[in-house]
Amino acid sequence: MATVTRSMHDLAGLTPHQIRHSIRQGQWRRPTSGLARGYTQANLAVVPRALAYDFLLFCQRNPKPCPLLEVLDPGDPEPREFAPGADIRTDIPRYRVYRDGALSDEIDDLMNYWRDDFVGFLLGCSFTFEHPLMDAGIGMRHIELGVNVPMFITNRPCRPAGVFHGPLVVSMRPIPAHDIVRVVQITSRFPAVHGAPIHMGDPAVLGIRDVQRPDFGDAVPVMRGEMPVFWACGVTPQAVMMQAKPPLALTHAPGHMFITDRRDSTLAVL
Amino acid sequence: MATVTRSMHDLAGLTPHQIRHSIRQGQWRRPTSGLARGYTQANLAVVPRALAYDFLLFCQRNPKPCPLLEVLDPGDPEPREFAPGADIRTDIPRYRVYRDGALSDEIDDLMNYWRDDFVGFLLGCSFTFEHPLMDAGIGMRHIELGVNVPMFITNRPCRPAGVFHGPLVVSMRPIPAHDIVRVVQITSRFPAVHGAPIHMGDPAVLGIRDVQRPDFGDAVPVMRGEMPVFWACGVTPQAVMMQAKPPLALTHAPGHMFITDRRDSTLAVL
Repeated sequence: MATVTRSMHDLAGLTPHQIRHSIRQGQWRRPTSGLARGYTQANLAVVPRALAYDFLLFCQRNPKPCPLLEVLDPGDPEPREFAPGADIRTDIPRYRVYRDGALSDEIDDLMNYWRDDFVGFLLGCSFTFEHPLMDAGIGMRHIELGVNVPMFITNRPCRPAGVFHGPLVVSMRPIPAHDIVRVVQITSRFPAVHGAPIHMGDPAVLGIRDVQRPDFGDAVPVMRGEMPVFWACGVTPQAVMMQAKPPLALTHAPGHMFITDRRDSTLAVL
Repeated sequence: MATVTRSMHDLAGLTPHQIRHSIRQGQWRRPTSGLARGYTQANLAVVPRALAYDFLLFCQRNPKPCPLLEVLDPGDPEPREFAPGADIRTDIPRYRVYRDGALSDEIDDLMNYWRDDFVGFLLGCSFTFEHPLMDAGIGMRHIELGVNVPMFITNRPCRPAGVFHGPLVVSMRPIPAHDIVRVVQITSRFPAVHGAPIHMGDPAVLGIRDVQRPDFGDAVPVMRGEMPVFWACGVTPQAVMMQAKPPLALTHAPGHMFITDRRDSTLAVL
């Protein structure tokens, strides 16, 4: 089949269902930021059933970095709650394959890797709270600069569960002092997608030596009158999973998320 | 050892730790309502590890009736997050033993039943949101009347997980029309303990034929100018677990809760 590549313009205004269809047809292999605005995008992690209890328990014990949206049945590729009819094996633009904790491949779909004992986990993503922050007039520096959000490995351990353990990873957004209260209020409404900040101010409190040298993503400047604000980050479960070195694990490629049918606003608690 | 029975007066003002100690000593075998006001009380469910994944997944898929506070490690009786040093086998005043889904015994501690493969689940309890409601001047009819809250089996199925499936059970509290908005706001702050109501008004919407004939608990009058308000209820996981008929499962006895060290206010999201 000849694949027609689509532009962002082509996909604007399409429903999540239609965008997933384009992705499934191979027409979109790029990051999903900015697509299906207002609809929740999700991180994907796939592990064998033998590891699924430990991973589910790890998420339950660390809900801020690992906010579970949906856990699929073993072997079932359809997120029946967040995107009925979708297929997590084909509806994400790009996937990663990890063997023994090391990245071994980046691929376009999971069809050649899928097994009957694989369990898919969809986890919340900070895209969901960045939109209401921007709607409130609060700028996201990394988006303004067109770079990835800066992320840091902290000195805070996650609560371990079975084979899974490791440090909390955080993302950082610089926020003007006069917007801090509003930022806490808005993000507190979204516990399903990392929720309220876990820290603001002195990065050393989290064991971060230099806020201009992130462990993942890109550095962004913190201006005079701004405070660095830290949120638990969805990289945590991936980092922890890699540390546990499962023989085989599958994830989305960073920034290439699963687009659900669920409106962001339905995840707000108040 | 001669057991000295304590009165509510004796326990007033004691810390959760001290109250659990009294319970462990056999000095308190009655319901825990009113004890350690301001501290979170929890439902207990214990299942073998072989059923733990399905039960954990059921809770993840049905967070309103099954708000997980903590899942203990297999064989570990200590809730390290919510009550370090405590023991779920001895620190609850009364327990129930279920065999093949049927109540087979009520006992004072779990020491003779405990196994290395048992997994303890602590689930949130509506006591936590009833206190801030009462603090806001909103009366809880069942507490005023000194009876159990009325509970109803609805026509809404829970999302199944493995061997666990069944209908949503709700509790009902009559609320004056002018307090409804405040009640939604206050309980929305506590997603970890059933959260916002799932319905208010016509009981028939939930398949409830007669709001004066609850399936569990006691009937309470709904006065003129009041609306029946329904919350997802912690009886749901117990009912569902019994329906799955595990060979052996252990729970607290109704009203005889596990008292944690966690202040209710720490569970509020905003």
